[in-house]
Amino acid sequence: MTVVYNFSAGPATLPGTVLNRAREELLDWHGSGMSVMEMSHRGKEFMSIAQQAEADLRELLVIPADYHVLFLQGGATSQFSMVPMNLLRGRQQADYINTGAWSKKAIAEARRYCSVNLAASSEDSNFTTVPPVDNWQLDPAAAYVHYTPNETIGGVEFDAIPETGAVPLVADMSSTILSRPLDVSRYGLIYAGAQKNIGPAGLTVVIVRNELVGEVLDGTPSMFNYQLHAENGSMLNTPPTFAWYLAGLVFQWIREQGGLEAMAEVNQRKAGRLYEAIDRSDFYNSPVDLRYRSWMNVPFTLADDSLDAEFLIQAGNTGLLNLKGHRSVGGMRASIYNAMPEAGVSALIDFMAEFERSRG
Amino acid sequence: MTVVYNFSAGPATLPGTVLNRAREELLDWHGSGMSVMEMSHRGKEFMSIAQQAEADLRELLVIPADYHVLFLQGGATSQFSMVPMNLLRGRQQADYINTGAWSKKAIAEARRYCSVNLAASSEDSNFTTVPPVDNWQLDPAAAYVHYTPNETIGGVEFDAIPETGAVPLVADMSSTILSRPLDVSRYGLIYAGAQKNIGPAGLTVVIVRNELVGEVLDGTPSMFNYQLHAENGSMLNTPPTFAWYLAGLVFQWIREQGGLEAMAEVNQRKAGRLYEAIDRSDFYNSPVDLRYRSWMNVPFTLADDSLDAEFLIQAGNTGLLNLKGHRSVGGMRASIYNAMPEAGVSALIDFMAEFERSRG
Repeated sequence: MTVVYNFSAGPATLPGTVLNRAREELLDWHGSGMSVMEMSHRGKEFMSIAQQAEADLRELLVIPADYHVLFLQGGATSQFSMVPMNLLRGRQQADYINTGAWSKKAIAEARRYCSVNLAASSEDSNFTTVPPVDNWQLDPAAAYVHYTPNETIGGVEFDAIPETGAVPLVADMSSTILSRPLDVSRYGLIYAGAQKNIGPAGLTVVIVRNELVGEVLDGTPSMFNYQLHAENGSMLNTPPTFAWYLAGLVFQWIREQGGLEAMAEVNQRKAGRLYEAIDRSDFYNSPVDLRYRSWMNVPFTLADDSLDAEFLIQAGNTGLLNLKGHRSVGGMRASIYNAMPEAGVSALIDFMAEFERSRG
Repeated sequence: MTVVYNFSAGPATLPGTVLNRAREELLDWHGSGMSVMEMSHRGKEFMSIAQQAEADLRELLVIPADYHVLFLQGGATSQFSMVPMNLLRGRQQADYINTGAWSKKAIAEARRYCSVNLAASSEDSNFTTVPPVDNWQLDPAAAYVHYTPNETIGGVEFDAIPETGAVPLVADMSSTILSRPLDVSRYGLIYAGAQKNIGPAGLTVVIVRNELVGEVLDGTPSMFNYQLHAENGSMLNTPPTFAWYLAGLVFQWIREQGGLEAMAEVNQRKAGRLYEAIDRSDFYNSPVDLRYRSWMNVPFTLADDSLDAEFLIQAGNTGLLNLKGHRSVGGMRASIYNAMPEAGVSALIDFMAEFERSRG
């Protein structure tokens, strides 16, 4: 088997033990004679898988009892519409914070449903930092405040949960959920596409305070109605069963690693070592404000960008895959989610040093 | 490994060779060192998988070049909204045919977006037949005609494609697509949840004539806009990559079986043998009009329904799983999609005869 480290931003590397377990069970789950993919979603076998996954996620994130946990389809892009369609609740405006590419997509979609108050933006700094919370121009009449705690493309991450008073806080946590402990009670709604820290693509987790759901805009498709999903235990229609099962295996794996405190310790160390390698050299550069550097997505550039192509080719030859930065920012990006082992980060750091020696 | 035959209506049994192949490739796809689940959807590896799957589906169904083929999320339930949101194109009404539980769901959702003309219904016959096409009250001003060629719950299937003149025909083919050759050119739009004849749950295939897309109702979420998906090659956002890959393996398997003509021959034979077993006995009964009996979903009852529970227990002990009929019709249902081997149907017929001997 080819040994590689895959730094893709998502879909992303999965824990080896999870993939091995999925492989072992692929033809016959627990003696049922069926693959999980073949099970009726309403049968006792899959129901036990689904319930265990939700219970494990609730335990990992210490989700309060008055929150629904939904396992949906459609990715964050669906949430960009679902959030206003469900959370406006008769209000005409919502606050949005613009910290990069994913914020902008959320804002563009929300503008189709309400008046967006751009309460803060770091666009002036080319999204290399986070707008200081003290300067946010929040609207007390807003239905909610939406922000993106970690920008996958820019590699900018909030270091604290913003205070929004009585206005519900909504977060796109696709690229940071489960990377560390989280105070869910501070949020009205959290959503995350699975394909970074949860499992395979095609699953979206939504955690929402019960009292916020139940009223939708006219014309909201039934599939975009949180309340209907909640009433049906995320089985309003056939859910993405195999992705849900994989997510459950990932939750178990995180528990086996020691939970979110342990993940945070490893993630902070991995990111710290990589940023240190970048900072100690003039050959490499990180554009991001020190305070807001992401633990999950580490963009960096080469001082001489004519070497970019050669860097990527040699990295690929060494088994370090998908390091090319997003086309909108250029350079490199190493996504180092929970499932990236420390050995992968070490291999990248070693390669970077070697490449610098040979070309610097 | 436990040997079973799984008659679930969906998610449903998958071809053994497909699952074996998926298992072999689960940790390392073609020497890439990555699971398909871990691949960037925009990388060359997954792009090749996605393109091959589309090419194989186009070849199997002989899809004309002026049709988009979309690989989406959200199941038929999302399509119930997407169809009117995209295909009304300024018109106020659409024709719907009611042949059972899934038709009714499509109708209920469409009513939220337009005036539904119920052009025909078989509700009077308790959905055991199809309303004669000659008596349909089609509206020439309708934006489209929607019908359900195969009703998964009732086991009723059309034996011909209805003629709707210039009005585009739209079909929910979730439980019949790929069961036999199909003249796609007769349709404006075909959709199908994958979890019956295509692959695992979480993927939805849409085949739509190019000229029908581009205009949507105000407030349509971007994820519900066919045109945006078409422009982005079904990668408006991260697609359900693993389900797409599995679908591709299923398409290859169908090609290896001899294509849709070969599938049709086997499917007709499987269904014919099962209906024959039901009809030759007074112990079992099929409620469905002979002419419209489904090849895919075979509901049947026991003359003495007090034996239902015992039938299901003994069947389960024999490895014949998920034969319980839908709660809305009772009795039994054997779903015998493409992937159900003839040996499975034989085992069911043998068991039915043995159960009748012991209890009849």
